[in-house]
Amino acid sequence: MSFKTINTARGVFVIAVTPFTQDGALDLDSTDRMVDFYRARGATGLTILGMMGEAPKMTQAEAQTFTARVLKAAGDMPVIVGVSAPGFAAMRELGHASMELGAAGVMIAPTPGLRTDDQVFGYYRNAADELGRDIPIVVQDYPLALGVTFSTPVLGRIIEEIPQVAMLKHEDWPGLAKITALRKAEAAGRRRIAILTGNGAMFLPEEMARGADGAMTGFAYPEMMVEVCDLMNAGKPDDARDLFDAYLPYARFEQQPGLGLAARKYVLAKRGAIASATARRPAPALSKEDIAEIELLLTRQSRALERIGAAVD
Amino acid sequence: MSFKTINTARGVFVIAVTPFTQDGALDLDSTDRMVDFYRARGATGLTILGMMGEAPKMTQAEAQTFTARVLKAAGDMPVIVGVSAPGFAAMRELGHASMELGAAGVMIAPTPGLRTDDQVFGYYRNAADELGRDIPIVVQDYPLALGVTFSTPVLGRIIEEIPQVAMLKHEDWPGLAKITALRKAEAAGRRRIAILTGNGAMFLPEEMARGADGAMTGFAYPEMMVEVCDLMNAGKPDDARDLFDAYLPYARFEQQPGLGLAARKYVLAKRGAIASATARRPAPALSKEDIAEIELLLTRQSRALERIGAAVD
Amino acid sequence: MSFKTINTARGVFVIAVTPFTQDGALDLDSTDRMVDFYRARGATGLTILGMMGEAPKMTQAEAQTFTARVLKAAGDMPVIVGVSAPGFAAMRELGHASMELGAAGVMIAPTPGLRTDDQVFGYYRNAADELGRDIPIVVQDYPLALGVTFSTPVLGRIIEEIPQVAMLKHEDWPGLAKITALRKAEAAGRRRIAILTGNGAMFLPEEMARGADGAMTGFAYPEMMVEVCDLMNAGKPDDARDLFDAYLPYARFEQQPGLGLAARKYVLAKRGAIASATARRPAPALSKEDIAEIELLLTRQSRALERIGAAVD
Amino acid sequence: MSFKTINTARGVFVIAVTPFTQDGALDLDSTDRMVDFYRARGATGLTILGMMGEAPKMTQAEAQTFTARVLKAAGDMPVIVGVSAPGFAAMRELGHASMELGAAGVMIAPTPGLRTDDQVFGYYRNAADELGRDIPIVVQDYPLALGVTFSTPVLGRIIEEIPQVAMLKHEDWPGLAKITALRKAEAAGRRRIAILTGNGAMFLPEEMARGADGAMTGFAYPEMMVEVCDLMNAGKPDDARDLFDAYLPYARFEQQPGLGLAARKYVLAKRGAIASATARRPAPALSKEDIAEIELLLTRQSRALERIGAAVD
Repeated sequence: MSFKTINTARGVFVIAVTPFTQDGALDLDSTDRMVDFYRARGATGLTILGMMGEAPKMTQAEAQTFTARVLKAAGDMPVIVGVSAPGFAAMRELGHASMELGAAGVMIAPTPGLRTDDQVFGYYRNAADELGRDIPIVVQDYPLALGVTFSTPVLGRIIEEIPQVAMLKHEDWPGLAKITALRKAEAAGRRRIAILTGNGAMFLPEEMARGADGAMTGFAYPEMMVEVCDLMNAGKPDDARDLFDAYLPYARFEQQPGLGLAARKYVLAKRGAIASATARRPAPALSKEDIAEIELLLTRQSRALERIGAAVD
Repeated sequence: MSFKTINTARGVFVIAVTPFTQDGALDLDSTDRMVDFYRARGATGLTILGMMGEAPKMTQAEAQTFTARVLKAAGDMPVIVGVSAPGFAAMRELGHASMELGAAGVMIAPTPGLRTDDQVFGYYRNAADELGRDIPIVVQDYPLALGVTFSTPVLGRIIEEIPQVAMLKHEDWPGLAKITALRKAEAAGRRRIAILTGNGAMFLPEEMARGADGAMTGFAYPEMMVEVCDLMNAGKPDDARDLFDAYLPYARFEQQPGLGLAARKYVLAKRGAIASATARRPAPALSKEDIAEIELLLTRQSRALERIGAAVD
Repeated sequence: MSFKTINTARGVFVIAVTPFTQDGALDLDSTDRMVDFYRARGATGLTILGMMGEAPKMTQAEAQTFTARVLKAAGDMPVIVGVSAPGFAAMRELGHASMELGAAGVMIAPTPGLRTDDQVFGYYRNAADELGRDIPIVVQDYPLALGVTFSTPVLGRIIEEIPQVAMLKHEDWPGLAKITALRKAEAAGRRRIAILTGNGAMFLPEEMARGADGAMTGFAYPEMMVEVCDLMNAGKPDDARDLFDAYLPYARFEQQPGLGLAARKYVLAKRGAIASATARRPAPALSKEDIAEIELLLTRQSRALERIGAAVD
Repeated sequence: MSFKTINTARGVFVIAVTPFTQDGALDLDSTDRMVDFYRARGATGLTILGMMGEAPKMTQAEAQTFTARVLKAAGDMPVIVGVSAPGFAAMRELGHASMELGAAGVMIAPTPGLRTDDQVFGYYRNAADELGRDIPIVVQDYPLALGVTFSTPVLGRIIEEIPQVAMLKHEDWPGLAKITALRKAEAAGRRRIAILTGNGAMFLPEEMARGADGAMTGFAYPEMMVEVCDLMNAGKPDDARDLFDAYLPYARFEQQPGLGLAARKYVLAKRGAIASATARRPAPALSKEDIAEIELLLTRQSRALERIGAAVD
């Protein structure tokens, strides 16, 4: 069941975008197509309603409608639902609704303003209590965007004292030492949780080498993340890095805060995964210079992939 | 109509708490009692679902239920509804629902992370566009809690270019110079908006002297705010300050971030305005030392009020 | 010797301003007069080169010149020197120079950006190592101005593991519970350090009741702080509060961030403690409205002091 | 003279590290060697005492000693000195001393906490007034590290109203649109300033295409930045990108906050530019895993450079 699904997850849980029509409404047809797109590129699972899924820009009703549609389209593929909210009541409401719809677990980002170790731990203690014992929790450790720093000791305490926590979405920057420290503590006896990494996969080969189980992040070419994980797991780190390096110039572009989502949706629309690149306000639009740069990077990316004999889509 | 109600508001719009039962559910009976309590102490209006109304801790459904109950109990008394939200979709949903229920206007705090003048202005430009032309907007300028600084020029630009903005909830600290500057610009021809001040009324006499129209803040003794405004308007600043000074030692205690809400709810429960002092998590609880200090301050407050011949409730 | 002086300090260490001439140069004559002024009003000690002493606006050479002059004027009165700096090399340089000139100890504010408990502890661990074993350290806990939050556990760890830490300058807000917790831990066996409180003395009676040893903060009327501490220690809390309440309306004005320093220097110049109210840029200037408000508050303060039979200076 | 040197600068001003001996003292011999290293790799100029030069970790005396040594070794090569300081007195002191020693100009980062456009502009207005009319100023726009956001209008106002501002060190992220906007304003008549870009050169080809004059950042392989700038200027963008892409995997590693400096110093020591990789506290140390990753990336980098026929050093 769910806990084991999350706890032993490997591979890539793609942080899904939320497709909108050109006038900003939820695009449910594209939702189905997008789920198919991600599955066809080898995703192990999906994570929806994350920050790059524009969750804060949706109403609670829209969030539930979108969740239901994704879960239906996903079938057996596990789906984690972001339930971060300014308060626990909304978090509980969406968390329970999502689990009833068939989600595999929920992801919780810390509320801004948490500072001390006790505050960070207390937040997850409270969140887990509010959600109840049956909901697997993914902890999102993303200081750059959230402004909350998780020390390695506080992560250890969360893992040890809150059994619902089943996975870490790791995106501290720099964060490699944290993976090493967590895996070392497990080797010394602490229960194991899954570690999937974020940051637009910008450090995926190194993260896998340190003991990550895979990636949970968005990138318009999820097949890169899937193959890098597979090659690392297959003991072919040099092949993994050859592939990674071919995608890196564009991945770097997509990792720009704010603008990156516009790039990602542009490429996903271009690849046919969604009908429109529309993002809800506030959202930066791509300039014609941005688009020219993306196109140039993608052309060069195809060439680089051909050079190493990789499939080009 | 609404715009005029807000634009020409004077006196005290109390930032209402949200009453919860001991187990954390919305307490609708206490909601009625609380509205009566505020009205009986001279409130001109109410503002609900502000930060001190624990708005972020409620679901959208609870927010609407509470709003409906307050509006019913308030009758002719104008009610402003806080609709601040992480995204515009939720803001619009609650804003429209509130206006349909009979709200006089909405209050919007800036989203965290806004930095430049263009970002602050753009946020209110977008919010006003999303809400539409018919909804009066109160701008909340509260850097201490929200981390967003409004320059005087950006407030001027908001007032000049966004006609829906009808009132400033002023709680910059220090903020007196801002009131003077805004009133000076109006004297030179800019359209006038209402300025009601916050910060737990800690600077109310000075704010009124600078040109504020009244207060929009919470305090367990709203009658102090009402009388200070009345005395200042009646040209009796010394009497206003005598009264203000008598309440100041406890007002200072209630103005402590976080803990202050616990104190306020404790006193409101003690005064019979609400049944329980319960706040939703995360919320600090009063220690026995805190309670002893509050009781001591209130005893001294009664004595000080008696000394100046003021009514003690 | 020094450690004992700091560790067992009681009463008021005034956070001294730095006097400048009208053209912004160090005013050493006023420095002498100011030291005399503070001593004559009952200060136990002085703390110089704090934030309200405009330390960051001085060169290292000026800081040492000013320190030497204060120490000479202070004679037997202990002087603590703020040595906070962006890096440890400058901290060590000023710390050692100050101790050689006769300082009683040094005060260190945390560098901005510290987040986790380990980061905060590690900063003081490093600072103490850099300064060496012989320099008593005052830890400044002032989240509002510094953006760093000290949890009670991290303060405990600092006290237990860094023997040079001899005093806490306490100005968390709210912070009363922290005093209670620290004193409780001492009652259970932890070594005792001095706790002097800040925040412009806005909570001094409550802080003394919780176990503070006195105040370390700035206020243009240091005699208020001295007498409140004396009366609290003498078991006359009601008299202490009567006096405190008489000063509170103006104290509140002086506690405004930024503007408060301008008010303090204005009143100190008016009282003859320094020749000029000049502050170095960046510094807000008092408007004529500000000055009128200060004068009104001081007139009312004199009246309130007369009413309770207190001396008016 | 100086203003023209800065205003029309092109190519690469390397952000120099500060070499320390293993026990943390200034390493002046390595300083000479480092200057030679940077010059030999094609640097147009140097910028010292930036954040990655560990400026805040040095005393004022050390800063001046190091500046004098660099300037002597640099000969004709222009050197910009970072003079950012918590206050203007220290900034003026170091600025004047540096110019007297022969610096080409000074670089100023904004003080933390600036929020509104007026605050940012006012800071540079004050700084320029304090430094005087004869010192060319480089404005550092680096929100990620400094927490201060420069809007494009405020940059425009700085350029228009402060003639001493001769260059922008551009490292907003994302920041490409800002370059385009600034160049457009110049095309419409605003005076031209130099734009050199930062962020570890992670976007150098795109920045050059948008109109940057070159780079001002640190990277252990300055020859990459030099050649990318040259190739872009020579109308060979594809060659520029081939070279850039070969260095990107390691550049990405070196761009990690905090840890990146340790990596850079490790590689510079390995390349013989400095004797020791020592950084002053607080500074993260490279773990054996970090070192293995760096070595792997450098091996792959050599291979990638060979594949495109580039020189490998």
